Amino acid sequence: MNKNVHTFIGCDNDYVDSKIVIFGAPYDSTTSFRPGTRFGPSAMRNDSFGIETYSPYQDKDLEDINVFDSGDLELIFGTPEKALDDIEATVSKILSDDKLPCMIGGEHLVTLGAVRAAAKKYSNLNVVQFDAHADLREDYLGERFSHACVMHRCHDILGDDRIYQFGIRSGERAEFNFANEHTSLNKFNFTGLKEAVDKIGESPVYFTLDLDVLDPSQLCGTGTPEAGGVTFTELLDALKEVSKLNIVGFDINELCPVYDQSGASTALACKLLREILLYFYK
Amino acid sequence: MNKNVHTFIGCDNDYVDSKIVIFGAPYDSTTSFRPGTRFGPSAMRNDSFGIETYSPYQDKDLEDINVFDSGDLELIFGTPEKALDDIEATVSKILSDDKLPCMIGGEHLVTLGAVRAAAKKYSNLNVVQFDAHADLREDYLGERFSHACVMHRCHDILGDDRIYQFGIRSGERAEFNFANEHTSLNKFNFTGLKEAVDKIGESPVYFTLDLDVLDPSQLCGTGTPEAGGVTFTELLDALKEVSKLNIVGFDINELCPVYDQSGASTALACKLLREILLYFYK
Amino acid sequence: MNKNVHTFIGCDNDYVDSKIVIFGAPYDSTTSFRPGTRFGPSAMRNDSFGIETYSPYQDKDLEDINVFDSGDLELIFGTPEKALDDIEATVSKILSDDKLPCMIGGEHLVTLGAVRAAAKKYSNLNVVQFDAHADLREDYLGERFSHACVMHRCHDILGDDRIYQFGIRSGERAEFNFANEHTSLNKFNFTGLKEAVDKIGESPVYFTLDLDVLDPSQLCGTGTPEAGGVTFTELLDALKEVSKLNIVGFDINELCPVYDQSGASTALACKLLREILLYFYK
Amino acid sequence: MNKNVHTFIGCDNDYVDSKIVIFGAPYDSTTSFRPGTRFGPSAMRNDSFGIETYSPYQDKDLEDINVFDSGDLELIFGTPEKALDDIEATVSKILSDDKLPCMIGGEHLVTLGAVRAAAKKYSNLNVVQFDAHADLREDYLGERFSHACVMHRCHDILGDDRIYQFGIRSGERAEFNFANEHTSLNKFNFTGLKEAVDKIGESPVYFTLDLDVLDPSQLCGTGTPEAGGVTFTELLDALKEVSKLNIVGFDINELCPVYDQSGASTALACKLLREILLYFYK
Amino acid sequence: MNKNVHTFIGCDNDYVDSKIVIFGAPYDSTTSFRPGTRFGPSAMRNDSFGIETYSPYQDKDLEDINVFDSGDLELIFGTPEKALDDIEATVSKILSDDKLPCMIGGEHLVTLGAVRAAAKKYSNLNVVQFDAHADLREDYLGERFSHACVMHRCHDILGDDRIYQFGIRSGERAEFNFANEHTSLNKFNFTGLKEAVDKIGESPVYFTLDLDVLDPSQLCGTGTPEAGGVTFTELLDALKEVSKLNIVGFDINELCPVYDQSGASTALACKLLREILLYFYK
Amino acid sequence: MNKNVHTFIGCDNDYVDSKIVIFGAPYDSTTSFRPGTRFGPSAMRNDSFGIETYSPYQDKDLEDINVFDSGDLELIFGTPEKALDDIEATVSKILSDDKLPCMIGGEHLVTLGAVRAAAKKYSNLNVVQFDAHADLREDYLGERFSHACVMHRCHDILGDDRIYQFGIRSGERAEFNFANEHTSLNKFNFTGLKEAVDKIGESPVYFTLDLDVLDPSQLCGTGTPEAGGVTFTELLDALKEVSKLNIVGFDINELCPVYDQSGASTALACKLLREILLYFYK
Repeated sequence: MNKNVHTFIGCDNDYVDSKIVIFGAPYDSTTSFRPGTRFGPSAMRNDSFGIETYSPYQDKDLEDINVFDSGDLELIFGTPEKALDDIEATVSKILSDDKLPCMIGGEHLVTLGAVRAAAKKYSNLNVVQFDAHADLREDYLGERFSHACVMHRCHDILGDDRIYQFGIRSGERAEFNFANEHTSLNKFNFTGLKEAVDKIGESPVYFTLDLDVLDPSQLCGTGTPEAGGVTFTELLDALKEVSKLNIVGFDINELCPVYDQSGASTALACKLLREILLYFYK
Repeated sequence: MNKNVHTFIGCDNDYVDSKIVIFGAPYDSTTSFRPGTRFGPSAMRNDSFGIETYSPYQDKDLEDINVFDSGDLELIFGTPEKALDDIEATVSKILSDDKLPCMIGGEHLVTLGAVRAAAKKYSNLNVVQFDAHADLREDYLGERFSHACVMHRCHDILGDDRIYQFGIRSGERAEFNFANEHTSLNKFNFTGLKEAVDKIGESPVYFTLDLDVLDPSQLCGTGTPEAGGVTFTELLDALKEVSKLNIVGFDINELCPVYDQSGASTALACKLLREILLYFYK
Repeated sequence: MNKNVHTFIGCDNDYVDSKIVIFGAPYDSTTSFRPGTRFGPSAMRNDSFGIETYSPYQDKDLEDINVFDSGDLELIFGTPEKALDDIEATVSKILSDDKLPCMIGGEHLVTLGAVRAAAKKYSNLNVVQFDAHADLREDYLGERFSHACVMHRCHDILGDDRIYQFGIRSGERAEFNFANEHTSLNKFNFTGLKEAVDKIGESPVYFTLDLDVLDPSQLCGTGTPEAGGVTFTELLDALKEVSKLNIVGFDINELCPVYDQSGASTALACKLLREILLYFYK
Repeated sequence: MNKNVHTFIGCDNDYVDSKIVIFGAPYDSTTSFRPGTRFGPSAMRNDSFGIETYSPYQDKDLEDINVFDSGDLELIFGTPEKALDDIEATVSKILSDDKLPCMIGGEHLVTLGAVRAAAKKYSNLNVVQFDAHADLREDYLGERFSHACVMHRCHDILGDDRIYQFGIRSGERAEFNFANEHTSLNKFNFTGLKEAVDKIGESPVYFTLDLDVLDPSQLCGTGTPEAGGVTFTELLDALKEVSKLNIVGFDINELCPVYDQSGASTALACKLLREILLYFYK
Repeated sequence: MNKNVHTFIGCDNDYVDSKIVIFGAPYDSTTSFRPGTRFGPSAMRNDSFGIETYSPYQDKDLEDINVFDSGDLELIFGTPEKALDDIEATVSKILSDDKLPCMIGGEHLVTLGAVRAAAKKYSNLNVVQFDAHADLREDYLGERFSHACVMHRCHDILGDDRIYQFGIRSGERAEFNFANEHTSLNKFNFTGLKEAVDKIGESPVYFTLDLDVLDPSQLCGTGTPEAGGVTFTELLDALKEVSKLNIVGFDINELCPVYDQSGASTALACKLLREILLYFYK
Repeated sequence: MNKNVHTFIGCDNDYVDSKIVIFGAPYDSTTSFRPGTRFGPSAMRNDSFGIETYSPYQDKDLEDINVFDSGDLELIFGTPEKALDDIEATVSKILSDDKLPCMIGGEHLVTLGAVRAAAKKYSNLNVVQFDAHADLREDYLGERFSHACVMHRCHDILGDDRIYQFGIRSGERAEFNFANEHTSLNKFNFTGLKEAVDKIGESPVYFTLDLDVLDPSQLCGTGTPEAGGVTFTELLDALKEVSKLNIVGFDINELCPVYDQSGASTALACKLLREILLYFYK
């Protein structure tokens, strides 16, 4: 009898044959409001069998591409440094094998580990962020490694004019002020995305999708639901636009299954991941 | 003291006086992902008392029309054949009394029983389907009588160019290929509906509404929520269009109350049924 | 050590310094379908710490204005008269101190207490109501003080052409007939709002927001979810329009936390209240 | 086709043939903490089909006895007086036909309506109460007709030494003091029940079962769960003891389905009602 | 990178080295009340990481024994025959390799497939059943292959005096009558277990544990919770007693995660499975 | 108007007058399985108004004693060191004012901060722990400051024979081995408590109550429910025994409201805290 290999639907290929490598980063220790995103990756694997591998949007099928799902990292809760190190090491390994890392969070802080690895390989790295929250605090109650600060930490690495933010509709005034100086922040929706894609051109891009960019009507299963977000269809169109970029790594994060009684948020996240995999697979 | 008669709101007329006859088909044994639609009809009866009988959309009132609600069939779980037979017999009885059958599912397979009965009475029957899923599989893990195959089974009876599908956004590639050959499948929304209504003309039509055609933001209480669906308002407009057809039977199915913690899905289904009854009552 | 003062986020000023005074009216005894709105105000205080004090919509911050939150009234359940008296007394006190009362319900009947107080101070008071339900019944099962009758009771006080209703999509036929004679009822959305604002001009206005005016996809946590409502963005625009009026008191009601498993409804209500406070603060 | 008669399982007999008459009293307007018991009777009817009609405890079957279920009264929410009048009238009617009334609450205040009716027929009426709460307050925030005062109101009618309370483990100090003077209050469990049964002898007894007498581990679906209660088995034994009395009416109340996510509380309440019906049927 | 092998905690050994083989049988199509047990096995795998591998009850550790978890069978929903065939084939394969099959249901009907396989290998097979329900119906609404009939079907194979039932507290009168003639049925608890163990002696035994034998206070996450059951501790003692028998196969079934909001039922089922594995491993 | 002071019921006294000082420690960043205990203290304050201030168990009333509730500390999520420092400082302040600190967790790691403070004041401090889990790991995935290690960290401070553990029924084998050498560990229940109380005598004691010592049937709202625990009544008796000790500080922790759909766990925790306050108040 065979061992019970558990993957996201249609992602049961071998590592060596695969161009995209999925792994889960089930960490949520710095979440300031409602924790629980650590269960996001496993919930997505479980419920992915409620969707199909075929996309009628793109007329493509996960069965026709090679993706490997390595399961979840075993991350330490509490102190974020070690978790970030483990994530960085994993992404570095995948990048060094010339594969595309696809990380499933976890809270948004996990993105920092991946960006560290990508920035080491690509000195001119850009970050495109879809999110409800600016995540640009200098610190949160004194803690600099917090989900609320993750884009500020990325800016520490990347510098000015490298971070493109879309859908942002929550933050302190200071965060919006910071963005005016240092990032390209686009409020509420995807206005400006096409221009950003043109401007970035062939430069390498790390793409991070905080699922709370969606309106909570579409995705209520997240720690900090923020009204006034984008629809699934708007997001799909934006992903198509992003797929024109030179994506070198990406993540999808902040699904919090405990607030998803109906499972509709998890199902939507699964469908989005299918579309992203099909869009980004080259 | 009187017996406790329990009906959908405003549908407490006698059978003989009624033009529309409601019955529940609480069957969900072939559901492949998350079961529970068997409780749809009773949940709708219970919660229908949270809506009004009057429709400000149509300026009509359930109090002014005659509808009979006979309660739920007692269907056998497991093997679908017997359940389908019971449904077919019920619909045949209603049709033979020149009344309009209105079935509340249950899973979508129940439609097959009703279509069998309708096709026996109307040789030139058409089916109009609103659904997220194509339901066109030849079989599901070898089983030919499955909710995932129900439209293929209807095609077995009706033949080519008789099935009109709208809102479809999920299926295997093979299903979409099948549709290209044998049905009129309209992806994602109601584009093409007006043309279909014109084309069908006076031919008899069985209308089946899988509630998951709605976006999960509007109706999360269903077994397989599929993002990217239509809004309530779009659906209402489409129902108005459908009401121009020669409807000879209809159903509303796939409400799964256990995933409707807020009750908003059940309330919406009740409101839809009110609108449908008022639209289809001639 | 200091006492544990519990307020809506950013509303921790002193009474004397504040222009707006928040209080909760946790009463829901006449709710005809699903009770539970009594827990609305405390849920909003608790979860308000999941949003920010800063509004990127208005570029204003609750930190920059003075609002006092006095907590919940201790209202008697059962007979509504005493609860309405207590609410009226509280609002009268706030109005007599030339402050703006902001009541958090509770069921919609609580508005009657506030309107009584406001009508005593302002003889030419108007009421602007955003709601899914007309609330214009003469009585409900014989009871004249019911959430379903609250606007009829307000009309008893104010007379014809003083009540402006928006978003209404549910009621008995008799209620819509009553509205044709006595109020300005606008069905489904905010069409006509600009004209109403122009017409009202400088007259004093009590504004009442029944959260079920929102589509249940946006706010499922309410006793009687009614499909076909407005979006958060449409509501925000309408609130901006309303803020041009001479608001002398307002409320936000009908949040029912027990049907808000994800917390998204409560979060949205908090965000709305922040925006309203920033809009109405002059 | 027949109308859809909806009863508690096995209670589908005609009124005239039945010795026991069930009716629901879906009232909860004076509930001071968490409302929702109004949905208790319909939840019990719905879920009663998950239990059997046969009792292996008594080797008796509901199929062998005649019980009529008349459904729920349509009670007015808000002011309790009218609801109590309607309950009293219903119980009086049943008693005048020499049948045994079985009321399903609703909050505990509904018992007052039934006791009023029973006390009019039986001048020497006793009340046996199983409950976690003494319910002996003189008033609750000034309101004398409240669930928290129901036994005090019964005492107003019946006088001293007529009320036997068991399982009581919550109340104000003043309530326990009142009990010392005026009732027979037995704390925590059923100690003293046998003696009470002997003492009451052949006198007529109204029996009221507040389901929160059970430990919340057994029944969490109630408005005010109170740890330290009795087990199902202990309650069954106590019911057997109570059945030796001359029961002239009884109720089972305070099931609150919204806090019963698993349905186990409702299932237990159904099973209890089956046992009670079989015990009390003579 | 390694593939993501997903097993019950501590059961990650290879098939060839293992004495016990776990597999899931996620079938629930004949469930007559509330379906959902199909998600039992995966829920147990997921949540098993919330318990330890070490048992302080037995001072043994799953790390010290060899168990293989092969994941879930892919069973067809609807018609039970094919599912039963697949289960029988799997158990036969495990038995033919002289390993102990451990099946995780699913509904109780799955036991029939395993008993068929075991009875083919062991002509003198006995069945020991812990259950709230007798499961002895001849048929359920005409269907002979139903969870409510599974023990009757086992009796069809095994004949009289081979089935030992414990904890039974629900069934039709006819089922209890059948048991009087054909099985050893022990009501409510484990009285008689020691005697049964002595009587069975060295004969081969298939052990089936329907988790609803537990009181719903301990395990509410099941389709048909039945009050008056055994405690965890009583069950543990009974399992110790059963472990003295010559167990040739066993199952644990009827966990229904959707009714286990707290996860306590799933956690208990995991702990039970750990104890059973440690008890039955020889 | 007064500010809205929010306390545990009956604990609204001033700091200077109070002998017991309550504060919340809403930290759960090192939780290894399911987080969410950070919301324990606020949930208990909110729901404490569902219980009475009077205890029929002790015939004492919170109204008659002086307790101050200072609300929740604002703790940093992520790195535990700063949170522990803040807790230690708070407890030290309370101890230096000769008051009894009562901390509401939060995860169990918070106890370490309090024990540090108490051990500085009392060199011969003992710890009495009621818990399902030994919490004696040397580290958890390399992290030494984890809820799973908290008693090992206390041992680092206190040394051998100072920690008394009761109700323990989960842990690694190594933890039980450690206990054999260094602590007094009593498995499953409170056997040995009386002897421990006698042995400790007048020495100062910090008492820590992990609510998961209770059976999950009594308290399912916790991160890691562990079957086989004690009942509420057994716990009450044990608390009475503990109250004979020279208690210098105590805590109650690990309530996780998100897994307490019914509210019964929170209600029980509130009742326990009332009893503890009444027992420990001297």
